[in-house]
Amino acid sequence: MPIFDNPGFAQEPSSKVAFAGNRLDRRSEHRDDDCLAEALASDAMRGFAIAGGRAFLRANGSGFEALHHAEQLAAFDPDLDNAILLGFAETDAPRLAVPVRLDPEDLPQTVKAIDHRSIYIQGLISGSLLGELAQAASLLAWSRTHRYCGRCGGETQPRAGGYRRECPSCGHMLFPRTDPVVIMLTIDTQNDRCLLGRSPHFPPGMYSCLAGFLEPGETVEEAVRRETREESGIHVARVRYHATQPWPMPHTLMIGCYGEAASTQIVVDRRELEDCRWFNRREAAALLTRQIEGGDMTSPPPGAIAHHLIRDWLSHGA
Amino acid sequence: MPIFDNPGFAQEPSSKVAFAGNRLDRRSEHRDDDCLAEALASDAMRGFAIAGGRAFLRANGSGFEALHHAEQLAAFDPDLDNAILLGFAETDAPRLAVPVRLDPEDLPQTVKAIDHRSIYIQGLISGSLLGELAQAASLLAWSRTHRYCGRCGGETQPRAGGYRRECPSCGHMLFPRTDPVVIMLTIDTQNDRCLLGRSPHFPPGMYSCLAGFLEPGETVEEAVRRETREESGIHVARVRYHATQPWPMPHTLMIGCYGEAASTQIVVDRRELEDCRWFNRREAAALLTRQIEGGDMTSPPPGAIAHHLIRDWLSHGA
Repeated sequence: MPIFDNPGFAQEPSSKVAFAGNRLDRRSEHRDDDCLAEALASDAMRGFAIAGGRAFLRANGSGFEALHHAEQLAAFDPDLDNAILLGFAETDAPRLAVPVRLDPEDLPQTVKAIDHRSIYIQGLISGSLLGELAQAASLLAWSRTHRYCGRCGGETQPRAGGYRRECPSCGHMLFPRTDPVVIMLTIDTQNDRCLLGRSPHFPPGMYSCLAGFLEPGETVEEAVRRETREESGIHVARVRYHATQPWPMPHTLMIGCYGEAASTQIVVDRRELEDCRWFNRREAAALLTRQIEGGDMTSPPPGAIAHHLIRDWLSHGA
Repeated sequence: MPIFDNPGFAQEPSSKVAFAGNRLDRRSEHRDDDCLAEALASDAMRGFAIAGGRAFLRANGSGFEALHHAEQLAAFDPDLDNAILLGFAETDAPRLAVPVRLDPEDLPQTVKAIDHRSIYIQGLISGSLLGELAQAASLLAWSRTHRYCGRCGGETQPRAGGYRRECPSCGHMLFPRTDPVVIMLTIDTQNDRCLLGRSPHFPPGMYSCLAGFLEPGETVEEAVRRETREESGIHVARVRYHATQPWPMPHTLMIGCYGEAASTQIVVDRRELEDCRWFNRREAAALLTRQIEGGDMTSPPPGAIAHHLIRDWLSHGA
């Protein structure tokens, strides 16, 4: 069978999730120590303004603008020393992530400070721009928590357009951090049903795929089996990769997989989950519908990789 | 088509790479602040001893022992406050990663300090134990570079058996770090050949898959396309996940994929690669053979995910 056959999934699943599709030209091999200053000097520069996990959006009548030019950024008390060059838009326009210090309370009526999750759920920005925001938010969250050297405690300094930080005291180099998380839909193929759970942190009535951080020294498949067994008591046999999703809360890579259940008796880990149960196709489909139409039990919203795992199983796994 | 069909690959590719197959019971949801002290008090405890990226191995006549009991560890000047509980062996025996301070120069003749890469390449330990070493080495490398809080510069303290560090000054919590790297074999399906390159850091004559760190705000597929285009000028269309490999130098997750070439004209990025070229099946097969039998051009060794990507293409992609 040809190596690129992707049975049942005509289009790349990773391209359909929220925060994917960032089209900036990152030029990652070309980041030198002058690139940030050059970007700041360019009239074509546009930047995201982010303060404490919230992006500043300018109302423009019909919607919101997430990108600001230099003069607009200046009004937000930008910390330009810690700005990060994300890449270049199609017209060679530099794109920046800019940490800003203006108290959101002091923003004019036309500018709103909105957390990244709400921006995505409410669809305030979309497409490539939402992917760029994921990049910006992840990098600034990393940068903010790496101002000091973990090895010696010295103050670090940004390099390579903010994509690296260095400790002048001990020479330690710090690179952006992305945390792999496995998120999986485990299928009981005999009974044609899937395993969903709810965390106490979820909105009322929401059920989703089980998930957890991949641990050091684990493959993706091993992490899927361990997390599923720990949280639900269900043993997983085969694992199949489906898609990934960048998740900027704060800097995560969601790795979406299907798991094939090798047992059916659920033992819920109550420290992690409030509930965990099997959903047949009718019940799972109802969750997705109610997510959109409203109801007592729902799924994660359409942009979430968990939504796609459930939907793609319903569409293709029959 | 059934969701768990994995055409052409009968057995899980991730299970065949070096550093996979760690069988410890991690009990990741059960790590409390007493678990390290309890483990240290157990007669059944065995630990890896690691100093500056090198594990201490005891010669035992026919080979090497990587695990040491309490008395043996004590001779290495262990930093038990920063030991990390990895999990439990089949007999409920606690397994630790222990940073040690004894200068390798002062080791007795029967104990060798060997870097993790050499341990794997020379096959000094194998199977589940090599996977446990990957977990131990990754966690200690993380812990060593997170002694101070990146947010405020305060000294951090280990918690949860060393699986978390906390800053008493500002409350910041630090979790183990795993860096996702994409590594890909790009296939020119029309001409039935694959794209390999060599970095100036490689051993003489070695060619391997292109690879690079996944960036914040990217899917795996996007990272595969970006890295391939940046390093070789080759455009990639479809991407297919193949396997992952834990890589403890220092704490990496290798994500192995196939890419389908959408162009054939190579433009080598000379800052990254010394050479990059197409290899037909015969040439690629010769690389793998010479890796084992010796020769002027070789591939990475059999445990490496790059070796598996090439070999599995040769075996199954015809």
